[in-house]
Amino acid sequence: MALFVQKFGGSSVADAACVHRVAQRVYDTKQEGHDVVVVLSAMGKTTDNLIALSREVNPQPDEREMDMLLATGEQVSVSILAMALHAMGAEAISMTGPQAGIATDSAHTKAKIMGINPERVVENLKKGRIVIVCGFQGLTPTADIATLGRGGSDTTAVALAAALKADRCQIFTDVDGVYTADPRIVPAAGKLDTIAYDEMLELASLGAKVLQSRSVEFAKKYGVELEVLTSFERRPGTIVKEEVEDMENVIVRGVAVDKNQAKVTIQHVPDRPGVAAKLFQELAAANVNVDMIVQNVSEKGQTDISFTVPRDEVNRARSTVDGLLEGIAAAGATYDVDIAKVSIVGVGMRSHSGVAYRMFEALSTNKINVEMISTSEIKISVVIRSAFADQAMQVLHTAFELDQES
Amino acid sequence: MALFVQKFGGSSVADAACVHRVAQRVYDTKQEGHDVVVVLSAMGKTTDNLIALSREVNPQPDEREMDMLLATGEQVSVSILAMALHAMGAEAISMTGPQAGIATDSAHTKAKIMGINPERVVENLKKGRIVIVCGFQGLTPTADIATLGRGGSDTTAVALAAALKADRCQIFTDVDGVYTADPRIVPAAGKLDTIAYDEMLELASLGAKVLQSRSVEFAKKYGVELEVLTSFERRPGTIVKEEVEDMENVIVRGVAVDKNQAKVTIQHVPDRPGVAAKLFQELAAANVNVDMIVQNVSEKGQTDISFTVPRDEVNRARSTVDGLLEGIAAAGATYDVDIAKVSIVGVGMRSHSGVAYRMFEALSTNKINVEMISTSEIKISVVIRSAFADQAMQVLHTAFELDQES
Repeated sequence: MALFVQKFGGSSVADAACVHRVAQRVYDTKQEGHDVVVVLSAMGKTTDNLIALSREVNPQPDEREMDMLLATGEQVSVSILAMALHAMGAEAISMTGPQAGIATDSAHTKAKIMGINPERVVENLKKGRIVIVCGFQGLTPTADIATLGRGGSDTTAVALAAALKADRCQIFTDVDGVYTADPRIVPAAGKLDTIAYDEMLELASLGAKVLQSRSVEFAKKYGVELEVLTSFERRPGTIVKEEVEDMENVIVRGVAVDKNQAKVTIQHVPDRPGVAAKLFQELAAANVNVDMIVQNVSEKGQTDISFTVPRDEVNRARSTVDGLLEGIAAAGATYDVDIAKVSIVGVGMRSHSGVAYRMFEALSTNKINVEMISTSEIKISVVIRSAFADQAMQVLHTAFELDQES
Repeated sequence: MALFVQKFGGSSVADAACVHRVAQRVYDTKQEGHDVVVVLSAMGKTTDNLIALSREVNPQPDEREMDMLLATGEQVSVSILAMALHAMGAEAISMTGPQAGIATDSAHTKAKIMGINPERVVENLKKGRIVIVCGFQGLTPTADIATLGRGGSDTTAVALAAALKADRCQIFTDVDGVYTADPRIVPAAGKLDTIAYDEMLELASLGAKVLQSRSVEFAKKYGVELEVLTSFERRPGTIVKEEVEDMENVIVRGVAVDKNQAKVTIQHVPDRPGVAAKLFQELAAANVNVDMIVQNVSEKGQTDISFTVPRDEVNRARSTVDGLLEGIAAAGATYDVDIAKVSIVGVGMRSHSGVAYRMFEALSTNKINVEMISTSEIKISVVIRSAFADQAMQVLHTAFELDQES
């Protein structure tokens, strides 16, 4: 007998029929002899509708009141699921975040979980009940209701799993797991059985939006085994867990592409201390998220600095950079939105050499020019022309032997 | 500076425009220099929609889960009103029943308020804030959310007013006060400025459904001054309060009619001890609410017993009575649904004699036959043919000098 935390998103409980399907899934897990804690998001469009209602009375609603309003969405879905489980003859009880002992800080609309006192949840599990908890919410030190930030329900599920020392936290979504590459682009992409937390974090930050980074970080921190799986079919998903030695046998776990990047190059920057610092300080102040940074070797006391930013921040970057050019005595700047970032990720890189070489060779053989390179311990990213992005993914997927027979 | 508790029902906050009107009303009271606590019901059809949703997953939902579900309705309306007040520049904070310190028993869907700890409400009032509290709900001893029974939001308002020692509890409705008679039947009916708790209780039980009896009883018990007024216009309503000597100068405060009654007569019942007891015990067991009871004088050791029941309970009464006839050796029973109960109510009756005489004379002058009579200290009710009900109201309204010039 194991303890599972099962999290279902809003689209999984969009209407009564969906709720019945979720109830059946939860009930079956219980019938198999396991304890189950369910974490739910608000039903379908509920949150959007509540936001629209709030805008009707106040274009800039107070965040504490917004939380008071939005927290009702999850409260509806948990009670409805409890009723559906009762109708099947199961014992079940719903709980708000505060009732489940979830304590947050006071940062309304983007609160962080500070701790969980799972006493009441445990008590009810001991009575043989399925416990259904509102995702996305908790109680502040001043007894106010707060909602968590993005991916809040995933975080609730992982935090509860950690507090309850659950055997696994299952995140049900509309995809059936994590893939070696986007299957819409790379038909030979295959679903992964397992992936290490760090690999998942790198892939998530690269736009493979299966799990929010925050909940993966949380799972890593507390050693919670995650499973990403579909709520529409009955088959195993991808397990995200602690890195084990075995995992290093695979050099590259997945290939990811990020087409929402732009490249900024500042030409002929005088090569003296403090220039780069000033530049990136100003960009941070303008709320521009700089990703890759490359500085070429200095020539005649001058250098070129290139960096990438999210494409929708390129105008903010331009105003900042253009304002700085004269002050730093640079020749000029170019802004290029026709780029893409392609990355390979794998903990196996730590113990294998020649990975970068294999990557660059595969790309050059296919006449794909590499414009920027950035590496971390388990990831290599390159910037290329965006027109070659999909082809680069294909090429790298094949080069690192990720292609699966269909 | 006074402290007002203002309660608005679901139709008063049905949509954003309604919420704005309520916000303006509350804001104006605050601007006049008063402290304001607002109690709200769920917006418009919210509760009905939530009930319909629950029925889709479970035809007989668990009551604890039902409360969890329905309590969200009020939570939406209080946060939305807070936002609307913020938009007007007012300081306001919303609270759930539990946050406002409302403690109930564990009788889910029909809980009773056991006590209120208004600390948090007081604290916020002291900060100059308008405090908006969810009606209809509270927290049970096991930290579950419970909803109150019928008229729950009125009860919340009255209980809060008592706990806060508010100067007045204003119940905003779609009528502008309590009338001497139903103005749709008696055009000369006038709005009352004041009415005693006991008079209001008698009128409420007679079908003048302006206030639920339960909240009037609560107000009486704790000496809370109530005001019934319309949310659509700005004018004083009717104040319900402790009886003062002055009130006795008016003999009859109002005339009420109840057309939803039926009369049951059991003929030739042997006049021996225990027969009536058995009869009414069985009716109570069958969940029949008996109202007036009349037993005529005994003749030849036999008597007729008549009583009234709500019209929609007459079939239940019939099965019970028919089953008993033989056992109590009665001759038979008649069931008459063409009756109406007309009542006059007034604390002045205590100190004035001849009130019954004036009532019967007024009716007989108009050839309206009285079939049953029942009296209490401040009320006289008669049963007549239903066809004469409206005429009887008119006649009595005039006879007791209640007609107002239009």
